[in-house]
Amino acid sequence: MTDPIAAARQSFAADLEDLRRFVRFPSVSADPARKTDVQACRDFLVAQLRDAGLSAEVWSTRGQDSVYAESPVVPGKPTVLVYGHYDVQPAAREDGWEGDPFTLAERDGLLVGRGVSDDKAPVLALVKAVAAFTRSGIGFPVRFKFLIEGEEETGSPNLDALVSERLERLRADLVAISDSSWIADGKPCLVYGLRGLVYGYVRVRGPKVDVHSGHHGGPLANPHIELARILAATRAPNGKIKIPGFLDRVRPVGAAEKKRIRALRYDLAAWKKELGLEKTLAKNALDCLLQRWALPTFEVHGITGGYTGPGSKTIIPSHAEAKVSMRLVPDQDPDEIRRLFEEHVKRLSPDAEVRWEVGGPAFLTDPEGPHLEAARRAFLDGFGVKPCLVREGGSIPAVGLLSKKLGVPIVLLPIGLPDDGAHSPNEKFSREHFEKGIEMFVHYFRIVGGTSAA
Amino acid sequence: MTDPIAAARQSFAADLEDLRRFVRFPSVSADPARKTDVQACRDFLVAQLRDAGLSAEVWSTRGQDSVYAESPVVPGKPTVLVYGHYDVQPAAREDGWEGDPFTLAERDGLLVGRGVSDDKAPVLALVKAVAAFTRSGIGFPVRFKFLIEGEEETGSPNLDALVSERLERLRADLVAISDSSWIADGKPCLVYGLRGLVYGYVRVRGPKVDVHSGHHGGPLANPHIELARILAATRAPNGKIKIPGFLDRVRPVGAAEKKRIRALRYDLAAWKKELGLEKTLAKNALDCLLQRWALPTFEVHGITGGYTGPGSKTIIPSHAEAKVSMRLVPDQDPDEIRRLFEEHVKRLSPDAEVRWEVGGPAFLTDPEGPHLEAARRAFLDGFGVKPCLVREGGSIPAVGLLSKKLGVPIVLLPIGLPDDGAHSPNEKFSREHFEKGIEMFVHYFRIVGGTSAA
Repeated sequence: MTDPIAAARQSFAADLEDLRRFVRFPSVSADPARKTDVQACRDFLVAQLRDAGLSAEVWSTRGQDSVYAESPVVPGKPTVLVYGHYDVQPAAREDGWEGDPFTLAERDGLLVGRGVSDDKAPVLALVKAVAAFTRSGIGFPVRFKFLIEGEEETGSPNLDALVSERLERLRADLVAISDSSWIADGKPCLVYGLRGLVYGYVRVRGPKVDVHSGHHGGPLANPHIELARILAATRAPNGKIKIPGFLDRVRPVGAAEKKRIRALRYDLAAWKKELGLEKTLAKNALDCLLQRWALPTFEVHGITGGYTGPGSKTIIPSHAEAKVSMRLVPDQDPDEIRRLFEEHVKRLSPDAEVRWEVGGPAFLTDPEGPHLEAARRAFLDGFGVKPCLVREGGSIPAVGLLSKKLGVPIVLLPIGLPDDGAHSPNEKFSREHFEKGIEMFVHYFRIVGGTSAA
Repeated sequence: MTDPIAAARQSFAADLEDLRRFVRFPSVSADPARKTDVQACRDFLVAQLRDAGLSAEVWSTRGQDSVYAESPVVPGKPTVLVYGHYDVQPAAREDGWEGDPFTLAERDGLLVGRGVSDDKAPVLALVKAVAAFTRSGIGFPVRFKFLIEGEEETGSPNLDALVSERLERLRADLVAISDSSWIADGKPCLVYGLRGLVYGYVRVRGPKVDVHSGHHGGPLANPHIELARILAATRAPNGKIKIPGFLDRVRPVGAAEKKRIRALRYDLAAWKKELGLEKTLAKNALDCLLQRWALPTFEVHGITGGYTGPGSKTIIPSHAEAKVSMRLVPDQDPDEIRRLFEEHVKRLSPDAEVRWEVGGPAFLTDPEGPHLEAARRAFLDGFGVKPCLVREGGSIPAVGLLSKKLGVPIVLLPIGLPDDGAHSPNEKFSREHFEKGIEMFVHYFRIVGGTSAA
């Protein structure tokens, strides 16, 4: 057999069994109690990469390990670095799962299980595309490198150090990533932009313990009200960010991009219905997508401090703390944004503390660039539909990082759907997308290597 | 024996055993699982009142029952209505109790147990003072009425209806209450003012479920930021309440009262140290007490909505809700204050919801009034110290209510200490205060009846 597509198709049933085994590992990177499960999943992945014909090894970090694999140089052919992750979000049956989250269920062509869409089916589809070349016996069309990390879901805290340390091993001509979703069912897309992220905490202190608000209330500042003063000043009622300097470096969106976004005919009413919104801050569909793709955000995710149990309790809390994050767009710099927010906080509440967690810059590539041409043809060959061009409002820390460190094009090849429910209960993935995704990746690697049948 | 003081002293050991039995009932009104414990405590109290020589009965309410008791009319003598409560705050050993919260422990003259200070020892001391008259055989110096309720700790939600329904039975010439504390150890006080309270919830809605802040952030209002806008506008950085109209009816404090407060030589530094504060909004000790006693407050007690677990999670929450309360002073009207706050909320966030729980007006009586003279003498006779005059920043919903419905003087006779830790773990009460409290109440009733030995 010399046709890798035929080789891929012959293996679909076995590939699905491997996906079932992959999902079986509760590789929850956020949960220290799952450390051995994460390691078992790592070893499963190493074996899968070796079965596909690559040499694979474990790269240790201070947190969860990464898996690295590669094939030998193919003279005259480019090197493609595939990035993905084998860790998943937490999941517990009582969150609303219809079955055990780590036992893959199949219902009406949908595969249900934690991590199946984010990012196990896409990662395995990429591995199985490589395996198809191996089984077909025609040799690899490109040199493969795979970097599959184990802590994307906790913000890739050790990836920067790992990439810096292993930079020479990771050198490639382009990076391919499949870790996002189409814009709608039947509507594949190439993602040419992602927002960046900075995530942190603001804490305001009060008395040393919660105290009775009747006995002591009046001469004490209330930490929640002081925190509210900081948070209320971040955005105007129309949603616009008011933190001084925050918007200064936001790159405007040009007429060509606006035209392309309009042509997507995005269904604003459907989005509002999906979210149960009566009103939004967006004037129309274009405005909605511009705000989600090309403008930064300031969001509060939750607030702790004081009493949140049932009934009435009258205390002045000892502290109030908000989890906050900002999504960034070109040309905002994460360090500068952190500094601007800290200054904003100090102006309003000099004693408040700000602490930072994960973060990274936005990513934007030329949607008309030649590096997307192979992807465009691969989608047409694999799914029979020409992909549209979109940005994404979310963040993949690795993208900004790899773009900066390697200085090569990054191509995002999503095969998920927007209602897959990544991070939600009953996360799912289309079985058809898994199979066609493998085919699409075979096409993609052949086209990139210039050995496409076409 | 004709001396009720001698009769009281002979019974101290037995009275302490009764206090031990009283504390043994986990009469936690807030906890539906404790309903039968509350009822058992109610029956114990009925038996204690009968033992003291009163006829006692149970008055049902929609919530926890009240206990009512009375003695026959004493011709030519006034009727004193004693109010108190037999329910207690929740307590669990893991909150930091050194022993079982409902097993009275004695350490260095301190009796430790949930509810011992708030309000079981004071209530039992009042009952035992009545019993001393019965045992002495000299007859009652006044007509006694006791109304001891079972849901003060949940804000007396059914007291208004009960008092309205039973108003004729409750008629009295004055109301005596012992449910607060001295201003310092060795410094008894008469409380001539309490703040009122309104307690409620403000809720802002967002998308129908928590949604991914990367995918959707931008055209969505963040419920926490909208809530922050409401809360930030309630108080200025100097603590002053900014809700329009809120301060309009606040009765100014006169020069005489300020002079009296200054004479208390309140230790501001000790208070700051107790609370662990580096700074306060008060300029000096007078300002501190005025803000805690004679000015209203707006406080936030806790905020729910979104993600408050460990680590970073990026969602726009489906809602944000704050528990808030306002302490009121004369002549603020609870209904008007509720309306002003609702208007404030609507102005800033038209779709936000406000719901109200418990509440009641402030209480203020003439500190120079003749109805306090008997109390002053009783403290001197019972504790050997002349009491100072103070207001209290906290609220006892029954006080405003009984004052309004009965239209008679209310006298607050605290026998607790400020560090008793009502509502806190390891709540305690001085054994000496329990015994001297009984004596003080005997003196008080004799003086009110005009039959004092003096």
